[in-house]
Amino acid sequence: MGKKTIYAALLGLGTVGTGVYKVLKKQEDEMEAKLGCNVRIKKVLVRNLEKAAARVEDASILTNSWSEILNDPEISIVMELMGGIEPARTYILDALRAHKNVVSANKDLIAVYGKELLDTAGDNQADFLFEAAVAGGIPIIRPLKQCLAGNHMTEIMGIVNGTTNFILTKMTQEGMEFSDALALATELGYAEADPTADIEGLDAGRKVAILACVGFNSRVVFDDVYTEGITKISAKDIRYAKEMGCDIKLIGMARNTEEGIEAFVCPMLIPSSHPLASVNDSYNAVFVHGDAVEDAMFFGRGAGELPTASAVVGDVFDIARNILAGCNGRIGCTCYKEIPVKQMEDTYHRYFLRMKVDDRSGVLAEMTAVFAKYDVSVEQMIQKETRQEGWAEVVVITAKVREGDFRTAMEELQTRESIRSISSMLRVYGK
Amino acid sequence: MGKKTIYAALLGLGTVGTGVYKVLKKQEDEMEAKLGCNVRIKKVLVRNLEKAAARVEDASILTNSWSEILNDPEISIVMELMGGIEPARTYILDALRAHKNVVSANKDLIAVYGKELLDTAGDNQADFLFEAAVAGGIPIIRPLKQCLAGNHMTEIMGIVNGTTNFILTKMTQEGMEFSDALALATELGYAEADPTADIEGLDAGRKVAILACVGFNSRVVFDDVYTEGITKISAKDIRYAKEMGCDIKLIGMARNTEEGIEAFVCPMLIPSSHPLASVNDSYNAVFVHGDAVEDAMFFGRGAGELPTASAVVGDVFDIARNILAGCNGRIGCTCYKEIPVKQMEDTYHRYFLRMKVDDRSGVLAEMTAVFAKYDVSVEQMIQKETRQEGWAEVVVITAKVREGDFRTAMEELQTRESIRSISSMLRVYGK
Repeated sequence: MGKKTIYAALLGLGTVGTGVYKVLKKQEDEMEAKLGCNVRIKKVLVRNLEKAAARVEDASILTNSWSEILNDPEISIVMELMGGIEPARTYILDALRAHKNVVSANKDLIAVYGKELLDTAGDNQADFLFEAAVAGGIPIIRPLKQCLAGNHMTEIMGIVNGTTNFILTKMTQEGMEFSDALALATELGYAEADPTADIEGLDAGRKVAILACVGFNSRVVFDDVYTEGITKISAKDIRYAKEMGCDIKLIGMARNTEEGIEAFVCPMLIPSSHPLASVNDSYNAVFVHGDAVEDAMFFGRGAGELPTASAVVGDVFDIARNILAGCNGRIGCTCYKEIPVKQMEDTYHRYFLRMKVDDRSGVLAEMTAVFAKYDVSVEQMIQKETRQEGWAEVVVITAKVREGDFRTAMEELQTRESIRSISSMLRVYGK
Repeated sequence: MGKKTIYAALLGLGTVGTGVYKVLKKQEDEMEAKLGCNVRIKKVLVRNLEKAAARVEDASILTNSWSEILNDPEISIVMELMGGIEPARTYILDALRAHKNVVSANKDLIAVYGKELLDTAGDNQADFLFEAAVAGGIPIIRPLKQCLAGNHMTEIMGIVNGTTNFILTKMTQEGMEFSDALALATELGYAEADPTADIEGLDAGRKVAILACVGFNSRVVFDDVYTEGITKISAKDIRYAKEMGCDIKLIGMARNTEEGIEAFVCPMLIPSSHPLASVNDSYNAVFVHGDAVEDAMFFGRGAGELPTASAVVGDVFDIARNILAGCNGRIGCTCYKEIPVKQMEDTYHRYFLRMKVDDRSGVLAEMTAVFAKYDVSVEQMIQKETRQEGWAEVVVITAKVREGDFRTAMEELQTRESIRSISSMLRVYGK
């Protein structure tokens, strides 16, 4: 029948690679009707041929030789699902220079070398697509680059790490402490053996860099993103936040302000009525604001074998359609601006502050005097009847203040004898 | 500098047309960097030249002659924002046959004549895009056609009418009755002078038809969609639903089952924990389930001048990119299957039933005997201490039952003397 077949190679057969293999199998029967061609995996690059053999129907597609794939002129799509910087970066650059199109789910790589990869794709009229690199199965890169291209986006704010969202959900709904919730996440497979990249906000930071690039048309790299994790959050903070009508979420934030781009990841109090506040468990969501679309939110599975594979296969199908139409590279790098990225010290926030103070008169006056010196004004204050052994707990929410000034105020506050300790310092979303 | 300019025409300068005009103006400075070309509105088709003159900078672009636009070879993109079936349908077909690309926000037209329009586009290698036709500014058509193309979608469920969602929100949050909430919606401009299409579910039904086509790759037209509005919902129903852990929303539903496609619009009880339950006011959202992506939701403004224009301009920019890459028509009609659409009688639901019954022994036995005859089993029942003048109110949630059987049971129930009236019959989402 003269069906056209497009050949693809898979680099890596871990969770996502296996998912992509499965999803392409499931689509086999209708690809031709859907796309006008078939897409077949011709080669799979793996380290351990024996281990991988159990995961594919026909082990003859497995190889441990990159050059075998690179030099196969029939292969026009390469899916890089290995992760890590090298050799992924070299392989992708090799493939693009050989005019092969590339799909990657590798946020670590793209958050640092995105420009190099996209420029190389552009130079070679190849597609480099990475929908799966941010928020797993949730369509967000293509919506920002295409559907919302008529907007000046001003804010992109997301819950883009499922592990930490699961942990915070357990802390919120069941009153668990961080360490117990982390242990549960590890037990259930939501957290990796070394959870550092998740709980310290590094994984989310890479996604923020990518989202800022795509949303604001200006290059932001991982190094530009301030990151702060959730290890210091306690169930008590979450309870106080609730009293103040808020939930605590690990927020990845990118803002396009007149003074430059703000890009950071940190736990934040957000109003419980905000759509992101009800994004629970390991779900992800990205909330955006643009001058035309106003508010929009994209919600779904931020990780997992099949959801991430859904995004990869969406990109593969797009490339197949481009191959048939002869228009690979039709949308390349969209970072055509050079907007500076602000230092975290120069961003403005409201702050949530929980402190142990001496339980005697004059302490609040001392505290507010330090606040006043640095332009920190108090919006809400709670002092609970939790006095014991001469100390009391005070919780404050401040008005908006420059982060640098707030930090100086905190340093000075900590030198005051009446302030026994600052238990928590968290940013508050809004106004 | 030899900038390439792509010329477009606007048909209609109402709310959305004016929005598109504004958004394109705002994008003027960066189009070239973003797309590699400029997009300029060369002509605007209006009925009343004088009235329209106030809305554009240069009134010389206004015309009331369609042939002037059709016969202008420089115009390669036509944005149909007039609404209604004719002359919109003729103009779009004319434009496509002249190899012009078309963007339309016209759900009434697409829900009926979608196949004709897409086939004509395909025959002429032109793009016919309609992101704005469903859920206004929310990206949903392109995500379904591209990002999620690797899925077999099984359920697409949305709050796709802002007017009714606003009304139900007021009824829920402020205990208003339907007529008062409708009056408020009219006053605030959320409801049109004749609100029939909104409150009877017709507008949502058109969107369901389009979503089903795009999501299930099979043609569903408006006539296939069962529609039921919200005019009979009372604040009392909403209070009972809350007691049962649910909210009432006007749900547009498309399901791809083994027996065929289900497509309907009706008020439904959905669990308050479901992400759609917290979509309030005039916001829209579409919740989808696919075999790979699992659950995903798209949330935002379903109408309004600029949000809808955001979707139109996204489509226009996509077409501009296709023109530059020489690949218009790269994604055409994706309805390559012929799945039958089920009759509403053959769908299965749980039901919420509110009745006035005689307040005497034996009535519940009589009721449940009728239920049993038609395989209706009771999952939850509430009988309140609201007895007065010899009657009581009973609220029941049933297990899943075939709609046809349930209707027969209701007919029989209404013949029983002890059943004074059936105040509400609503479907319940889930299980």
